[in-house]
Amino acid sequence: MAPAMTLAVVGSVAFDAVQTPFGERERMLGGSATHFSLAASFYTGVRIVGVVGDDFGPAEVAVLEARGVDTEDLERVAGRTFFWRGRYDYDVNVAHTLDTQLNVFAEFQPKPSPASRDAETLFLGNIQPGLQAAVRRECTGATLAGIDSMKLWIDTQREALLEAIATVDAVLLNDAEVRSLTREPNTVVAARKLSDLGPRFVVVKRGEYGAALFSEHGFFAIPGYPLETVVDPTGAGDSFAGGFFGYLDGHGQDLSDGSLRRAMAVGSVMASFNVEGFGTERVAALTEAEIRERFQAFRAMMNVAELELDADLR
Amino acid sequence: MAPAMTLAVVGSVAFDAVQTPFGERERMLGGSATHFSLAASFYTGVRIVGVVGDDFGPAEVAVLEARGVDTEDLERVAGRTFFWRGRYDYDVNVAHTLDTQLNVFAEFQPKPSPASRDAETLFLGNIQPGLQAAVRRECTGATLAGIDSMKLWIDTQREALLEAIATVDAVLLNDAEVRSLTREPNTVVAARKLSDLGPRFVVVKRGEYGAALFSEHGFFAIPGYPLETVVDPTGAGDSFAGGFFGYLDGHGQDLSDGSLRRAMAVGSVMASFNVEGFGTERVAALTEAEIRERFQAFRAMMNVAELELDADLR
Repeated sequence: MAPAMTLAVVGSVAFDAVQTPFGERERMLGGSATHFSLAASFYTGVRIVGVVGDDFGPAEVAVLEARGVDTEDLERVAGRTFFWRGRYDYDVNVAHTLDTQLNVFAEFQPKPSPASRDAETLFLGNIQPGLQAAVRRECTGATLAGIDSMKLWIDTQREALLEAIATVDAVLLNDAEVRSLTREPNTVVAARKLSDLGPRFVVVKRGEYGAALFSEHGFFAIPGYPLETVVDPTGAGDSFAGGFFGYLDGHGQDLSDGSLRRAMAVGSVMASFNVEGFGTERVAALTEAEIRERFQAFRAMMNVAELELDADLR
Repeated sequence: MAPAMTLAVVGSVAFDAVQTPFGERERMLGGSATHFSLAASFYTGVRIVGVVGDDFGPAEVAVLEARGVDTEDLERVAGRTFFWRGRYDYDVNVAHTLDTQLNVFAEFQPKPSPASRDAETLFLGNIQPGLQAAVRRECTGATLAGIDSMKLWIDTQREALLEAIATVDAVLLNDAEVRSLTREPNTVVAARKLSDLGPRFVVVKRGEYGAALFSEHGFFAIPGYPLETVVDPTGAGDSFAGGFFGYLDGHGQDLSDGSLRRAMAVGSVMASFNVEGFGTERVAALTEAEIRERFQAFRAMMNVAELELDADLR
């Protein structure tokens, strides 16, 4: 049993309105830090650092606290909570943004409390790169820090983002972001360029295809868990990140090859649950038995080592 | 040691002109049946069924025969060989077709010889669906038949293609083709719809992300072998198919779960060699030692079974 550790995550907390081929929701709990926290909560103690408006009520707080997420650093300010409206059509892999209202998130200045500054693991969800770097400096207790970002910051604050990346141990981005940030179309080369900035490992999220890991131990890729029904992909990448870092924090920050591979599987499984329901609905109601069952199935799917994989030439 | 078996493949044999960020070639050996044959030749005896013009010389035949491919059914007719010119830019995953001259391929009527009709395994490369179905009927010796196709036939001869698919045991298509053919955006559902037509398994090729297998044994996915340099992706999918069916034919058509997974790994490895050189250059010169070495590396990359993958909850 590893000693109890804490994971602090900074990022957006939002209300989302989403339409997909499977239905719609006018107002549901969302945001990168929310999805991350819920997924991570199955693996370690989580503190969420974010800002909400006065429309954020006890029901929303209760979703986080029911999973044991510490909301002490969820700052409340006058105004409305960050709001995003999007639509997914025939191809659920493509999000169409219909409306973005930053509201109180526009002036967000993360203020991690002493307990969050002492957290052993820190995840910098996608906020302004300058703020990410400031939080990294403040959180002096973190011996493992990860970072995410988005197209907006790559396009508008590339240098600041590269500087923030240089301060962390791990980068998690999707493949289009990795290519665009490094201006390198080959993801293997792109990942190496990011590692050269300082991080010990790079996780390239590949949507329904899973994710790839580039570390000092070499290359590893994990498929997405195959699902016949993807109800709402919003937050899948954040759930992957939450599972991945939640696992690492909950297991003493073991960065061995095996531990990183297990963390990849945890991320893939948590993302698969996320997309089975609208917003946080599926993950918030998830049971440990359901996670165990999906792991059994996933493990069987990935089995190649027992199959004596060999060149087997004629 | 499995008894000696034979694999017959019907498809295009071509000259390709290709420009990529790594260089260009004005005229090189190409075509789906060519790439398939060379990859499969490391695993079993291959007979190529195709048509070429009088510009197809001894040098081109020699590339196939040097790998032991039987060219008896490579029909020669007056005129020029099928010619394709394409360009790959920054993102090598996207081919830009600059010119297509069907030439003698326009009137291609496959005429498999008795030896090809007796082949135990048959692969129907992407030619007109009606011709694919006719070849399947003629080749009565085949106890395992696979099929590939392309966007052109999905768009223009969808019903004929679905009928041809109903006559085979295995479908290999890329993910965009699978979605478009079934009019179903979710590849898990799309693969099931194809299986419902008759085939025992469906392989969805995912380009640089590898490939997924849907069979009676369940789901399996294999990543692409990670490469820093992709010189020319032309023929990667055909090399995957050649490795996959070559392995199955060379191993007595063993369709167990383990055998299919090994065939997926063979396909992925053969595709990875294909893209490291222009046209057939890399695979034609490949050694068995190189294949064995890459398998060792690939196997280590995919190891999860030994890692006691488990839900590992807090």
